[in-house]
Amino acid sequence: MMYKVIFLSICFAFLFSAFGSQPQKINVQDFGLFPGVADCTPGLIKALKSCKESMNAELVFPKGEYHFYPDFGIDKYCFVSNNDEGLKRVIFPLIGFENLTINGNGSSFIFHGFVNPFVLENAANITFKDFTMDCARPFHSEAIILANNTDGIDVEIPANFPYKLKNGLLLFTDGAVSEEQKTTVNRPMTYPYGSLLEFDVEKRETAFMARDFYLDGNPLVVQSLGERKVRIFLNGLKGKVGNIMTFGAANRNYPGFVLTDSKDIRFSNITIYHSGGMGILGQRTHNILIDSCKVTPSAGRIVSCTADATHFVNCTGKIELSNNLFENQKDDATNIHGIYVQITKLIASNEVIVQLKHQQQLGFDFLKKGTIVEFVKGRSLITKGESRVVDVERLNKDFTRVVFSNVLPSDIIIGDAISELRDFPEISIHNNTIRNNRARGMLLNCRGKTVVENNYFHTPGAALLFEGDASYWFEQGGVSDCTIRNNVFENCLFGVWGKSVIDVAAGIREDKELSRYNKNIRIYNNTFLIFDDVLLLNLYGVDGLEWKNNKVERTTDYPANRKNDNLFKVEYSDHIKIEPYNSKK
Amino acid sequence: MMYKVIFLSICFAFLFSAFGSQPQKINVQDFGLFPGVADCTPGLIKALKSCKESMNAELVFPKGEYHFYPDFGIDKYCFVSNNDEGLKRVIFPLIGFENLTINGNGSSFIFHGFVNPFVLENAANITFKDFTMDCARPFHSEAIILANNTDGIDVEIPANFPYKLKNGLLLFTDGAVSEEQKTTVNRPMTYPYGSLLEFDVEKRETAFMARDFYLDGNPLVVQSLGERKVRIFLNGLKGKVGNIMTFGAANRNYPGFVLTDSKDIRFSNITIYHSGGMGILGQRTHNILIDSCKVTPSAGRIVSCTADATHFVNCTGKIELSNNLFENQKDDATNIHGIYVQITKLIASNEVIVQLKHQQQLGFDFLKKGTIVEFVKGRSLITKGESRVVDVERLNKDFTRVVFSNVLPSDIIIGDAISELRDFPEISIHNNTIRNNRARGMLLNCRGKTVVENNYFHTPGAALLFEGDASYWFEQGGVSDCTIRNNVFENCLFGVWGKSVIDVAAGIREDKELSRYNKNIRIYNNTFLIFDDVLLLNLYGVDGLEWKNNKVERTTDYPANRKNDNLFKVEYSDHIKIEPYNSKK
Repeated sequence: MMYKVIFLSICFAFLFSAFGSQPQKINVQDFGLFPGVADCTPGLIKALKSCKESMNAELVFPKGEYHFYPDFGIDKYCFVSNNDEGLKRVIFPLIGFENLTINGNGSSFIFHGFVNPFVLENAANITFKDFTMDCARPFHSEAIILANNTDGIDVEIPANFPYKLKNGLLLFTDGAVSEEQKTTVNRPMTYPYGSLLEFDVEKRETAFMARDFYLDGNPLVVQSLGERKVRIFLNGLKGKVGNIMTFGAANRNYPGFVLTDSKDIRFSNITIYHSGGMGILGQRTHNILIDSCKVTPSAGRIVSCTADATHFVNCTGKIELSNNLFENQKDDATNIHGIYVQITKLIASNEVIVQLKHQQQLGFDFLKKGTIVEFVKGRSLITKGESRVVDVERLNKDFTRVVFSNVLPSDIIIGDAISELRDFPEISIHNNTIRNNRARGMLLNCRGKTVVENNYFHTPGAALLFEGDASYWFEQGGVSDCTIRNNVFENCLFGVWGKSVIDVAAGIREDKELSRYNKNIRIYNNTFLIFDDVLLLNLYGVDGLEWKNNKVERTTDYPANRKNDNLFKVEYSDHIKIEPYNSKK
Repeated sequence: MMYKVIFLSICFAFLFSAFGSQPQKINVQDFGLFPGVADCTPGLIKALKSCKESMNAELVFPKGEYHFYPDFGIDKYCFVSNNDEGLKRVIFPLIGFENLTINGNGSSFIFHGFVNPFVLENAANITFKDFTMDCARPFHSEAIILANNTDGIDVEIPANFPYKLKNGLLLFTDGAVSEEQKTTVNRPMTYPYGSLLEFDVEKRETAFMARDFYLDGNPLVVQSLGERKVRIFLNGLKGKVGNIMTFGAANRNYPGFVLTDSKDIRFSNITIYHSGGMGILGQRTHNILIDSCKVTPSAGRIVSCTADATHFVNCTGKIELSNNLFENQKDDATNIHGIYVQITKLIASNEVIVQLKHQQQLGFDFLKKGTIVEFVKGRSLITKGESRVVDVERLNKDFTRVVFSNVLPSDIIIGDAISELRDFPEISIHNNTIRNNRARGMLLNCRGKTVVENNYFHTPGAALLFEGDASYWFEQGGVSDCTIRNNVFENCLFGVWGKSVIDVAAGIREDKELSRYNKNIRIYNNTFLIFDDVLLLNLYGVDGLEWKNNKVERTTDYPANRKNDNLFKVEYSDHIKIEPYNSKK
C-alpha cells in the first residue's frame, strides 16, 4: 500500500512539475500562420514538424481566429473506442510527440469540413492550453418546431444549418452549391443524421421527459413548406411549438481530441464548442488532467459535442476532471471504463479466440503479451479466475487468438468474457458543473479510488451511474472505492435516461443473489434538490454503501412525475447503510 | 524497336511457360475445407499460409460448393482505383504471394456478407482456374415493374432481394431479422443503393434507351402495397410493366479481384456471377491474362457485377482478354487507362503539389522516384513536356509533393496535369462476347499496341470508346497504335451511353484545332449491324484513322431512333481515310 502511495506521488509530481529544461518557444507566425490566412493547416503541419524535432517545445499561437481546412491534413486510420473507426483526416496529428505545449493565448480554432482536430498516439507530456475550438458547420443540425401534425411535425431550419430537399428527403449539407455532372461516382457532401431529440428553448436543456427518435441513419421523408420551413413525416414525432428539434449526427467520426497509448496529457482552459463525436476520448492512456475547460455550444446552437464530453477507456494512472463546465453535449459528461471481450471459441486448455462485440470497440487491442486479465461469467460478471497473456494474434479488428500462462478456469464457457486487470486509475472529479446534456452525468466504472466532490449536477438522466456488462455494451465497470461528497444534484432525472439520481445499472442477467459488482460506495454531505418522488438511489448487486448527512429538498421547478413511497430502492446488495434523512413531501 | 519485341517475347514466354519446378499440391481438405463446412474462411486462411510458405503451390479445391463468411477474413485498407477505398475484410488475402495456382476443379465459391473475395498485392505468378464465384446476397437489388403512376412506379420485389420499409423508406437488407435494443450506436445492416436502371425482361439487357436515375445514395420514399409490392415515389421514374427495375449498389466497396502492384496474373475458366464493385480490377500490375472466363448473372438475377467486368489502371506488360463472355454487368466490359493528377500548387522551378481529383482514385500513388512523367495542358491534353521524378512526398491520399529532375516547362500553370509515361502495355482483346451490360463495351485508352479482333459486341452504349481527360474523370488515354478487325457489332447503341458505335469522347475542352489525342486507328473487316442511322464513327482530335472493308447491314430489331445523313462524323482530325461502304437505307 505504501508502495502505491509513493508511486502515485511520483506520478503526480511528474504530472505537475515543470519539465526539466525550458521548452523552445515556436511561434506559428514563423510558419505563415496568421489569423487572416485562408487555410492554416499547411503551415501548422510544418510548425508541428519543428516541434517534434525540438523534443521540448511550446507552440505559440498569438491570439486570433485560425481556420483549418481538411486539404493538407494527415491521413491516419484510427480505431477510436466508443466513436467510429475510419481513415481520419487529422489537423493536429501528434503521433509520437513528446514534451509539447500548444498554447492558444485565447485564440479560436475553427475547423472546416470532415476533419479530426487532434489525434495523439504514443505521445507523452502534452499540454493544451488557452484556446477554443469549433466546427464551421456542425455535424448535427437543429430546427425550430412550428406545429404538430398527426404524422409528424413542421419545423423551420435556421440558416446556420444548411439543408436541401432531394427526392422527398431532408438532407443537411455544408451549404455549398454544386450541381456536378451526375455519374456513377458522384459523392454528395451531406451530414447524415441518425436520431431526433427535442430541446427546451427556454431552459436550454433536453425537453422535459423527451425521448430519442432513432432513424438508423436514414434521412426523413419531408415536404417543403417554403422559406426554410419543412414538414417532417414521422409517426409519433411530437414536440412543443417553439422548442428546438435536434438532428443528431449519424456517426461519431470526428471526436475533438483522441488520446491513444499516450501519457501525461493536460487540458487547461480549453473550450470545445463542438465535435462530431466525443469531445475528449482517452484510450489506454496514462494520466489525464482536464482542468478549467468547457464543453458548451457556440452562439446560435443548443448542442455542443455530438456525444460524450469526455470518455476514458482502459486508461491508467490518474484521471482528474476539475473546475470544468460540461453542458449541452449529446451524451454523458464522462464515462470511465474498461472493455470486455467475449470468448467465442475454446482452442486449447489455455487458448481461446475472443471477440470485440460492440461495433465501436472494434480494433481496440488491449491484450498484449504480459497483460493480466480476469475471466468473468458473461451474464453475471462474477470472476472465474485470473491469468496472464503469453501470446496474442490479432486475426482482424473483431477477433483475437489469445494464449494464457495457465490453464483456463475449469468452468469457462463460450460467452464468458475477459478484461484487463490494469493499473486502474485514480479518479478525481471535483468542482465541475454538469448540466443540460442528453442522458447522464458521470458514469463511474473504474476500480481505482474514485472521488466525486463539490460538483453541480443538473442532468436529464441519472447524475451518477454505475454500469458495466459483458452482454451488450461490453464495458468493464465495478467500483471498489468510491466517495461521492459535497455535490449538489439539482432537479436531476427530468428526462428518461435512468431510474434514480445515483443509479446502478450493471448488466447482471444471472446469479443476482451472488453477484456484487460494485463495492464500497460512500455518499456523504450531498444536497439533492428533487421536484417529485424520484428515486435517489437504485442499488443492485452492491457490497457496501453508506448514505450519510445528505440533504434532500423539494422544488417545484418541474411537474411532479413519479410516485415512490421510498426514495431508496435496494436489491441484491449487502452492507448497505442508509441514514434516515428529512424530507417533506 | 527490336529491343521492345524481344522484351515482350520474354515476358510472354514467362507468362505462359510452366514454372521451373512442379508446384506443391495443397489440398484444402487437409485444412478442414469441405463443401459441407459452414464457414470455410478459417481453414482457408491456414491453407493459404501453407501456400505462402511453399513458395510454389497449387491450392486444390475438390469440386463442390464452398461458403466463405466474413468473421475470420483478414483486414486490409485498400485504395482500389475506380472502386471505393476502405478497410476491407478479405477472404483470399494474397499479399506478397508468389507462384500460386488456385484450382477450383469446377467448384462454386459463395461469399457471404460484406467481404472482398480476392485481394492481391505485391503478388507474382498467380493463376486462378476453374471455379465460379457468387455472393449469397448481391450488393444490388431488383424488382418487377407492376405499374406506372404520375409520380413513380409500383414494383414487386422478389424474395431473393430481402428488404424492409422503415419510416416511409425502402431499405434492402440481408433478410436477417434483428430487433436489437435501440441505442446511439445501432448499426443496421442494409445494402445502400444509389441509382435505378430498367432492364428488358425479354431481351435480358438494359431497356431500350433506358437512363440511369441517380439517387445520391439515399433511399427511396415508398409505400407498402402488401405482399412484397411497393409504391415508389420518384418524379420522372417510368418503366415498362413486366420489366425489371434494378437498384444499383451505392458504392463499389467489394470488387471481386483486386490486383495491386503485382505481376503475371492469369484467370482461366473463372465465372464471376456477382461482385459489389468491378469484377477484376488491376492497378500498377504487369501482365494480366483473362481467358475463357465469364461475367454473367446467376439464376434469378439480371445483373452480374455491379460495375465494370474488368478494368486496368496504370498497368504494364501485356493485357490479354480472350474467349470471355462479359454480360449484364452494370458498367463497361473493360477500361484500360492511366491516371492524371492535377497540379494544384507550384512550389519551386522543379517542384509542385499534385492532387488526385477523382474520388475513386484517391490514394493511387503512381509517382515514385524515377517515374517518367509527361506534363499536359489540363483542358487540351496537349503535351507540354516530360521529366523524371527525383523526390516524392505523399501528404495524404489526395495530395503529393513532387520534385522533378528538370525545371518545369515554362508554360506550366495550376490546372495542368501529370501522368506516367510507363511501359504502356500491349493490349490483345480477341474472341470475346460483350453484351447486355450497362454502358459501353471496351474503353481503349492505352498507348501500347492495341488489337481488338474477332469479338462480338452488343452494347447499349458505344462498343468501343476512346476517352481520356484531365478535367473530370482524370483518366489518361490516347491510343497510338490501335487495330480493330473482324469484329461483329450487332445493334449497338440501343441505349444512351455514347454517340457512335466506335466513339471518341476525349475531354478536349480547349485548343481543339491543335489537340490530336488519339493516333493511328485502323478499322478493318468488321461487320456493323445497325437498326437505324446510328453514327458508326464519331471522331474528334484524331491523327490517323483508316476505315476499310467493313460491312454495314441493316436490322429491324429495334425501333429506328436516329436520323443521320452521314454515319461518320469527323471533327478536328487529320489523316482520316474512310473508304466508302455500301448501305441501303
